[in-house]
Amino acid sequence: MTAAPPRVSSPLGLHRVLAPVGVLPQAAWQLDARPDLWPDEVRVGVQRLNLDAASFRQLRSEHPESAAMRSAVLSIVAERGKMQNPVTGSGGMLTGVVEEVGPDSPLGLRPGDQVATLVSLSLTPLVISDGLTRWDGRSEQVPCDGHAILFGRSIAARLPADLAGPLALAVLDVCGAPALTYRVVSDSPSSKPVVAIIGASGKSGSLSAAAARQAGAGRVIGVVPVEAEAAIMRAASADEGPGGLVDEIVVADARDPVGLAAAVAAAGGPADVTVVCVDVPGCEGGAILATVQGGTVVFFSMATSFTAAALGAEGVAADVTMLVGNGYVPGHAQLALDLMRSHPGVRGIFQRRIDESEGLE
Amino acid sequence: MTAAPPRVSSPLGLHRVLAPVGVLPQAAWQLDARPDLWPDEVRVGVQRLNLDAASFRQLRSEHPESAAMRSAVLSIVAERGKMQNPVTGSGGMLTGVVEEVGPDSPLGLRPGDQVATLVSLSLTPLVISDGLTRWDGRSEQVPCDGHAILFGRSIAARLPADLAGPLALAVLDVCGAPALTYRVVSDSPSSKPVVAIIGASGKSGSLSAAAARQAGAGRVIGVVPVEAEAAIMRAASADEGPGGLVDEIVVADARDPVGLAAAVAAAGGPADVTVVCVDVPGCEGGAILATVQGGTVVFFSMATSFTAAALGAEGVAADVTMLVGNGYVPGHAQLALDLMRSHPGVRGIFQRRIDESEGLE
Repeated sequence: MTAAPPRVSSPLGLHRVLAPVGVLPQAAWQLDARPDLWPDEVRVGVQRLNLDAASFRQLRSEHPESAAMRSAVLSIVAERGKMQNPVTGSGGMLTGVVEEVGPDSPLGLRPGDQVATLVSLSLTPLVISDGLTRWDGRSEQVPCDGHAILFGRSIAARLPADLAGPLALAVLDVCGAPALTYRVVSDSPSSKPVVAIIGASGKSGSLSAAAARQAGAGRVIGVVPVEAEAAIMRAASADEGPGGLVDEIVVADARDPVGLAAAVAAAGGPADVTVVCVDVPGCEGGAILATVQGGTVVFFSMATSFTAAALGAEGVAADVTMLVGNGYVPGHAQLALDLMRSHPGVRGIFQRRIDESEGLE
Repeated sequence: MTAAPPRVSSPLGLHRVLAPVGVLPQAAWQLDARPDLWPDEVRVGVQRLNLDAASFRQLRSEHPESAAMRSAVLSIVAERGKMQNPVTGSGGMLTGVVEEVGPDSPLGLRPGDQVATLVSLSLTPLVISDGLTRWDGRSEQVPCDGHAILFGRSIAARLPADLAGPLALAVLDVCGAPALTYRVVSDSPSSKPVVAIIGASGKSGSLSAAAARQAGAGRVIGVVPVEAEAAIMRAASADEGPGGLVDEIVVADARDPVGLAAAVAAAGGPADVTVVCVDVPGCEGGAILATVQGGTVVFFSMATSFTAAALGAEGVAADVTMLVGNGYVPGHAQLALDLMRSHPGVRGIFQRRIDESEGLE
């Protein structure tokens, strides 16, 4: 099946696509993950995979046992040459140490650099060499040995020296959301836009709330699903000091369109900008209804349904701009790390999530 | 099961939802379709249903006989109070004559107006009163008698007197695409933006090409999948007269990202705005790669994958704004009808598609 390898590499990684021929690595079924480098590539010695939430949840529901979970991930990577969940299509990211840098690599990395990849595992050639023996299958964080390949146009960030590894990784994992939120709120035609963050007590949600405030939001409404999450938000706002992390904390089910819209309205909405950061299906209608005519909805959730969004807006005559949350915005890693450093409330939320996740391991 | 009817109406039609309580009419299993109006409603005497293609295909495969097909549609409408296919979830649209207008209706309609609904049948209260005796079950177009209800926030368009019914209906069916294209091209930061229309020889594609030109595009590149479609585009451009419908006609497979990007680049790209109008899966990567950094992609295809778009852009470090093609933009019906009237090339494409479809019946 494998054709002779191409003689020149592509910054997009096309030369690593085995099947189907001609598609981009992200759309490919199978990648060539061999360790030898083309001139513009970088090889990273993998230390840890960070599976994305949607993929982890799907795999875990299908494989409750640790051994089965390990086998599932190993099979996917062995078969596909990358860690892309065949059901969700999603991947995650990884951290490791740069092993070798091709002479034509434009990424500016050096052997020994501690890095996190900011392109998805769903397009990153990967080999796992330790059988995942250090992973119990119960955490999204997967300690492992192996190697991964970065292309000329891949994105990687050096891990900052002033932040603990898990904290930096968790921030970099979601850094596209605050960056795009910052841009959309800055560009809002409203001078003091009302911003609703659906899922404000999560990692991408809390960073996006801080980004919205920094971008000039007049009012930030944090929506959470249950009272326990509201308590987390209140603690985070107290950590922030004067002004808090958000102006209003609202408990509402994002899957109940009318209830969500009413709750946001009662908290000072409708929103000029609504940011969807919860990874559950069925939040499209509520996000649309919670947004003012002429406003913008940014969908970061990988559980977003394109058709539900498109038909949902039409069905209620909602003139809202709906954005697919692009994970890449220039400068996104630096912006997110700086927000973390300057917002103790956000830092507290991240630390809590990391502690919880380690508690599960 | 039915609670006492609510005493106030909702512009979203919540007061017509019988079960389950609290959801939007589109998500409801059963609507109250009684003919009496709340003050902000409009009742339409139905003349014709236009089942959407996915719903018709599913029903027809399950009920090949005409009598069974009639029974199936009658059962759905009798049970649910709306024509929403339980398998596909989709509906269609209808045409008819306004019978009664509530005193608080904001829609601007009058009794006797010939209208088409621009919200889906999947959320429109409907009663069929003639047993569908005039329908043989073999066409998506269903002549029938009955009534339908429009809510305060429903959308309906008066059928223009100067266009044949099937032509007007075909235009209204896709009118969201040219309206949003017009807006995005007008708002482009580039003074003479390059616009690529993927699927330019189709109904939504040809209208979007005309809209892009009218909105000030500096160059319109029409992408079609095969030479036969390129011939249709050349004929349309000849019909248009000086300037043509597009500046360049490009034959490329939209599912081949690198090929598509190269073809668009050779025709004067990359595009500042790329409009995806082809209903085949796998076009996300190509559209992203064909677009300049800082540009915009508008996805109108219902075959678009949210995750493929989000991860695809991130995977190639593409800083592009990606829009979910909202079917509702204020003024969309009028804009599309006017484009049709003033663009003989677009009209020719529509007439050809309508003739082909009638030939199938």
